[in-house]
Amino acid sequence: MATVFGGVEGGGSHSVALLVAEDGKILAETKGPSTNHWLVGVDKCITTINDMVQRAKIEAGLDPNTPLCSLGMSLSGGEQKEAINHLMAKLKELFPNLSKHYFITTDAIGAVATASDRGGVVLISGTGSNCKLVNPDGSHVGCGGWGHMMGDEGSAFWISHLAVKTVFDAKDKMVAPPHDVKHVKKAMMEYFQVSELMGMLPHLYRNFQKSHFAGFCKKLAEGAEAGDALCRYVFTQAGRVLAKHVEAVLLEAQEPLLSGELGLPILCEGLVWKSWELLKPGFNEVLDKVASSDKFKGRFHGYSLLVLRQSSALGGASLGAQSIGATIKMDYAANAKVFYQHTFNSNQ
Amino acid sequence: MATVFGGVEGGGSHSVALLVAEDGKILAETKGPSTNHWLVGVDKCITTINDMVQRAKIEAGLDPNTPLCSLGMSLSGGEQKEAINHLMAKLKELFPNLSKHYFITTDAIGAVATASDRGGVVLISGTGSNCKLVNPDGSHVGCGGWGHMMGDEGSAFWISHLAVKTVFDAKDKMVAPPHDVKHVKKAMMEYFQVSELMGMLPHLYRNFQKSHFAGFCKKLAEGAEAGDALCRYVFTQAGRVLAKHVEAVLLEAQEPLLSGELGLPILCEGLVWKSWELLKPGFNEVLDKVASSDKFKGRFHGYSLLVLRQSSALGGASLGAQSIGATIKMDYAANAKVFYQHTFNSNQ
Repeated sequence: MATVFGGVEGGGSHSVALLVAEDGKILAETKGPSTNHWLVGVDKCITTINDMVQRAKIEAGLDPNTPLCSLGMSLSGGEQKEAINHLMAKLKELFPNLSKHYFITTDAIGAVATASDRGGVVLISGTGSNCKLVNPDGSHVGCGGWGHMMGDEGSAFWISHLAVKTVFDAKDKMVAPPHDVKHVKKAMMEYFQVSELMGMLPHLYRNFQKSHFAGFCKKLAEGAEAGDALCRYVFTQAGRVLAKHVEAVLLEAQEPLLSGELGLPILCEGLVWKSWELLKPGFNEVLDKVASSDKFKGRFHGYSLLVLRQSSALGGASLGAQSIGATIKMDYAANAKVFYQHTFNSNQ
Repeated sequence: MATVFGGVEGGGSHSVALLVAEDGKILAETKGPSTNHWLVGVDKCITTINDMVQRAKIEAGLDPNTPLCSLGMSLSGGEQKEAINHLMAKLKELFPNLSKHYFITTDAIGAVATASDRGGVVLISGTGSNCKLVNPDGSHVGCGGWGHMMGDEGSAFWISHLAVKTVFDAKDKMVAPPHDVKHVKKAMMEYFQVSELMGMLPHLYRNFQKSHFAGFCKKLAEGAEAGDALCRYVFTQAGRVLAKHVEAVLLEAQEPLLSGELGLPILCEGLVWKSWELLKPGFNEVLDKVASSDKFKGRFHGYSLLVLRQSSALGGASLGAQSIGATIKMDYAANAKVFYQHTFNSNQ
């Protein structure tokens, strides 16, 4: 086999595998179900990985019995050293023809490696939320990602929850709502198909489904676009708290991350970013303050928001190749697109 | 059968039934498991009620085939009119010898009726939290009681969660902790038997048990008593938010509730009240402000905290008797004990 590298993007709901040549040409791409081993278990995880990669080999016209040079995996749930060592050992044992070498990292690191070889920030806001900063030297630091019971700030779940909680608190006279709750209450009753607040309890407990609860966020985005003040408010709050994640990891940023021509590159993942215009006021309010703070004045000039146009399996493949001393040629400008740029006034 | 009334206190974990004569003499008392019909279902609920009351009849030397004059039930989960009508219909149908008449109210209303015939506030802080104000005319209003996903502010769960979240936020540099987290982090790792924050995830998701999570509150109380500033802080915050519940329901209070010699009577239920001294600073801070606000200045002079010395089954029995035009003689001073009294400076 020519020099072929593999990459895997392993998500909580679906996964992607791809094969790539040294020159960066993508030879094949396949899809599969979740490979988060915390969710599906180790056996299902590695079987799915093997299945996707072997299908990709066939799709690329390669011999499935010839191992890849390396397989680099960017996995949601790929945090704990012990767990990933166990995963790699099982892959080697059960699928000796899959790949000669393995490399596993987290979904965030793989995403950054797809967009840049100089690091960056990944800020996820989908059903849940998470933030990670990767430095040019590969060192990294995270903030959030603990799920809806201990975080998920700024995610679709969090936005939905904030809106619903505002309705409950207003009803209870526990906290005065910042704006009239009428529209949100009506939208909530429609979305959850309930006629009174008590009816929300099954949605919160017995029949709780995080993704369904988080789905209410879409209705709130529609309300915000139609001008409802409370809907706009919850997105502004989400923008603020997402920026707080960036502020938290920024403390560990090495100088080159801040001084590039794009300013701090922030890779945005997840459906909530579709509502960027609604997040923007809160997001910029917080980062403007950070930029003019003593710690960052004169150092933090601006930032860019980017979205990936390639699966982060490609970044995984690239890191996998690097781990054996090889290099895949990457076209970073094609892999990620800047959709917003901001320069701070305080630094102009 | 002589004039005998029955009462039931129905809780989420256990229940009490008692029989009482017109003169207030308690003839028998029995215990049973949960009778919250949302938790155990209607069939189990009414079977448990029948079983407890019939055992009480035998214990009192009465003929179990002779129905009581009335059975007044103070049930956790006894909110929804439709649901309680269904409960009563099933009791009548399946157990014709149990009682001639039935009356069902919520646990909070039954608790107040045990302590007073002039209303009061019930403020529950156990695993969860809840607040209800009952006016002298029987009208009532509530705040909270929506469970850990939408409220439970000031409860043992909430206190535990606040402490754990403070540790996570400090680790993430998301929010600077108000005090050093060292002691709380150590106590958390001991209580939950984990060696890193990641280890908390099973306790929050896969193996989540609200009562076990809430049990960490006891360790925090111990830390607070030993002088740890963060432990003291979380209880002060709990005191504040519990007082916010009182503030919310106070808007609906009729004058006599405020002008009695005890000031506003607040009936305290749940284990968190064992840490009253720790709640006190926050609780009084909020209520002092309420008392000196334009709305309440000169009207809200002080409050008393009371604890029940009798099962709220007795209040249920009393309300049940009233519902058929009868009266049980109640010794309110014996049924509830004042454990704290406060007079606001602003009104002196």
